[in-house]
Amino acid sequence: MPKAVLTPQSEDFPRWYQDVVAKAELADNGPVRGTMVIRPYGYAIWERMQADMDRRIKEAGARNAYFPLFIPESYLTREAEHVEGFSPELAVVTHAGGKQLEEPVVVRPTSETVIGEYLAKWTQSYRDLPLLLNQWANVVRWELRPRIFLRTSEFLWQEGHTAHATEDDARAYAARIHEDVYAAFMREMLALPVVLGRKTARERFAGATNTLALEGMMRDGKALQMGTSHELGQNFAKAFDITYLSEQGRQELCWTTSWGTSTRMLGGLIMGHGDDHGLRLPPRLAPVQALVMVVKDGEGVPEAAHRLVADLVARGVRAELDARVDTAFGRRAVDAELKGIPVRVEVGPRDLAEGSVTVARRIAGGKESVPLGGVVGVVAAALEEDHDTLYAEALAHREASTVAVTTVGAAAEAARTGWATIPWATLGPEGEEELARSAVTVRCLTMPDGSVPRKEDADGVLAVVGRAY
Amino acid sequence: MPKAVLTPQSEDFPRWYQDVVAKAELADNGPVRGTMVIRPYGYAIWERMQADMDRRIKEAGARNAYFPLFIPESYLTREAEHVEGFSPELAVVTHAGGKQLEEPVVVRPTSETVIGEYLAKWTQSYRDLPLLLNQWANVVRWELRPRIFLRTSEFLWQEGHTAHATEDDARAYAARIHEDVYAAFMREMLALPVVLGRKTARERFAGATNTLALEGMMRDGKALQMGTSHELGQNFAKAFDITYLSEQGRQELCWTTSWGTSTRMLGGLIMGHGDDHGLRLPPRLAPVQALVMVVKDGEGVPEAAHRLVADLVARGVRAELDARVDTAFGRRAVDAELKGIPVRVEVGPRDLAEGSVTVARRIAGGKESVPLGGVVGVVAAALEEDHDTLYAEALAHREASTVAVTTVGAAAEAARTGWATIPWATLGPEGEEELARSAVTVRCLTMPDGSVPRKEDADGVLAVVGRAY
Ligand SMILES: [Zn+2]
Ligand SMILES: [Zn+2]
Repeated sequence: MPKAVLTPQSEDFPRWYQDVVAKAELADNGPVRGTMVIRPYGYAIWERMQADMDRRIKEAGARNAYFPLFIPESYLTREAEHVEGFSPELAVVTHAGGKQLEEPVVVRPTSETVIGEYLAKWTQSYRDLPLLLNQWANVVRWELRPRIFLRTSEFLWQEGHTAHATEDDARAYAARIHEDVYAAFMREMLALPVVLGRKTARERFAGATNTLALEGMMRDGKALQMGTSHELGQNFAKAFDITYLSEQGRQELCWTTSWGTSTRMLGGLIMGHGDDHGLRLPPRLAPVQALVMVVKDGEGVPEAAHRLVADLVARGVRAELDARVDTAFGRRAVDAELKGIPVRVEVGPRDLAEGSVTVARRIAGGKESVPLGGVVGVVAAALEEDHDTLYAEALAHREASTVAVTTVGAAAEAARTGWATIPWATLGPEGEEELARSAVTVRCLTMPDGSVPRKEDADGVLAVVGRAY
Repeated sequence: MPKAVLTPQSEDFPRWYQDVVAKAELADNGPVRGTMVIRPYGYAIWERMQADMDRRIKEAGARNAYFPLFIPESYLTREAEHVEGFSPELAVVTHAGGKQLEEPVVVRPTSETVIGEYLAKWTQSYRDLPLLLNQWANVVRWELRPRIFLRTSEFLWQEGHTAHATEDDARAYAARIHEDVYAAFMREMLALPVVLGRKTARERFAGATNTLALEGMMRDGKALQMGTSHELGQNFAKAFDITYLSEQGRQELCWTTSWGTSTRMLGGLIMGHGDDHGLRLPPRLAPVQALVMVVKDGEGVPEAAHRLVADLVARGVRAELDARVDTAFGRRAVDAELKGIPVRVEVGPRDLAEGSVTVARRIAGGKESVPLGGVVGVVAAALEEDHDTLYAEALAHREASTVAVTTVGAAAEAARTGWATIPWATLGPEGEEELARSAVTVRCLTMPDGSVPRKEDADGVLAVVGRAY
């Protein structure tokens, strides 16, 4: 195998990340500061994420809709904490159609406000509740220190927005999205274990009464917030007059939620599984699961490779042919590793003369010679196994990099290389503030058994602390 | 059946359109002038359009990617005709992140310029060509006289952008999208016949050397441009330096194309098929193909309705249950008509006692009593037939509303109620200008056999003229 084309992770992890994004042709910087171009290979992974997430969201009863990109500036100011949280990041359109606008409009940083306006229209009676909406959209939050997929001035996401008759119903739905949709997606599609918990007041979404979060550990020990689900209480209902006529004939305020996941998950996928050779894609998301490569030309080689692709496709494997024999085989193999393609089937004249090919595994590693008739079965089994291997590795890494501590000093120390758990009763808001001075944050509050605390001050609540993207 | 809830088409067609959009819950006006909210029912139709169009685009070899919303103002000015065409419609961001921007950025009205910048990076050698990209995105063109789906300040669309080594290859690809993707989609999914042709110089896309268009006739006799595919010649290649190293080792300029279809097609669907009772949806796009309605409660009625839904779903029909017996049946039936649901299966106690239900058809019209065991077969056959019926009706209407004329005066007269065809050699640019004074435009140039003229001045070229949305 030729020399690595990437900066090793151990040498400079952020540089490794940049290298992978560029060399696996996932994305590029846009011409306007902080924006990104998602290239076809990166977008193909995102499309698979979208399709699966969309299915899960619909199964949870939400319907897709689309709300405008432009929001009147005055909407943003109606919910005090919300405007305070987002003001510094807003992009503002002041001119349009050749004229100065009477009221400037902001490009949506998120859509609670504009959707609040319509929830108010559409929730007339208790019969209209719960009203469960979702949209796939681009949003803009001006970033001073952008990093592709992780923090960009424009990103793609889904944002759910729901209105409920009672606080209990809103709370249960936010939790359902958090666990049954998001956590399940991350486990079953991204092959990433996530810690489920609630945010502290300091880390909460601007305007929420409670933020549920999913935190993944990256291979450098830092955390990435993979998604959030917010209880908004009646804050937006008050600001936008989202009321309904109850069964008893009274006007009541709704309880609302919002929740989102974004192209940031691509960053989590890269940093959660990648190694010094490049991406390692969970098979369920890989645009190409098996690459059948003609090593070099020879009698019957292209034909055999073609046939293998057809057989794999017939078995439901996303297989592609690489017959570019005018490019050195080594270079093509390195490129397939970079792109994280789970399985390579290498078809060469010598092996073929003996009725066999070589199956190389990106995730488990290693190569084996497989008789032609056995290839489809071996590949299908490998793809099954690879998902579990990625998940198990990520979990083992997280466990090995997380330390239980009892002092703020020990938590700060542990956060140099990974996470610490510390009783929230010990840490508290003061300890949280102390850690923040060295860029260590409480990623979430969780229970020792991994469940989500009902309240911040419940018995046994643990704070998971670490550095984060 | 209760009284119609819509303004009749014959009384006020634009008002009828507004009524349908509102009452079928397709969309609503956004808070910022000219923007729209696509409601869940409207969005569900759009999602089905997207999925099918996306599949066809991928079959034509293009890959999806995503380019930024924000474009440096300077990019727009590089192609002279392009900037002239779009300047009056641009929305401009002057402030972001709490500061005035050094260079204002425009919100993309279309992405030729920003994609041109990346095509230039990615087309190094002839081996990289053709480079075939597509994106699904929102775009902004400030509208002074907005109309939902037809002309809105923000709309959703797909835009394809390709680079080719030769003019012939670019031309063939633009034509392939025009005919094999767009026209086929409109025929097979929207059930709308379209006239294929090329635009005159006056109607061409800003920056194109040739614009291929698809024109549909609405039920009021006006035209709607349903999609366009542009040959851009080397205009953008020159402006953005999109070159490649040829097989002979020379730097050559690429030839590019772009092509798009948008949420405007929803307007075409409404106005191309709707009647005084509301929408009539082609079954392949209908979110609900068969609504199984409990007419009123009675022994075994809900159970029978449930079973019918399950049987229909098992047969691959998108069937839903309406058991809202606390709402008057008449009102629910009117609502189903408004929403254009192709088939209603009405389950009532009296019919059921005799082992039958009533099948009501939105498109063919009429009701029939069908024995329980025959329902699935009757519904499946109806859905097949309905697509063809809609297409045939739309075609017959277009043919009846199109007159062959030989003078400009007769063309103007015909355009009061429909279209005229007139030899382009007779009409010419002067006649075109004369018609334009009364808001009649050349929709496209076409051949008598329906094929697309190779050149504007080919023998026998006909101009199709009419009023348009
Ligand atoms: Zn608040
Ligand atoms: Zn030009």
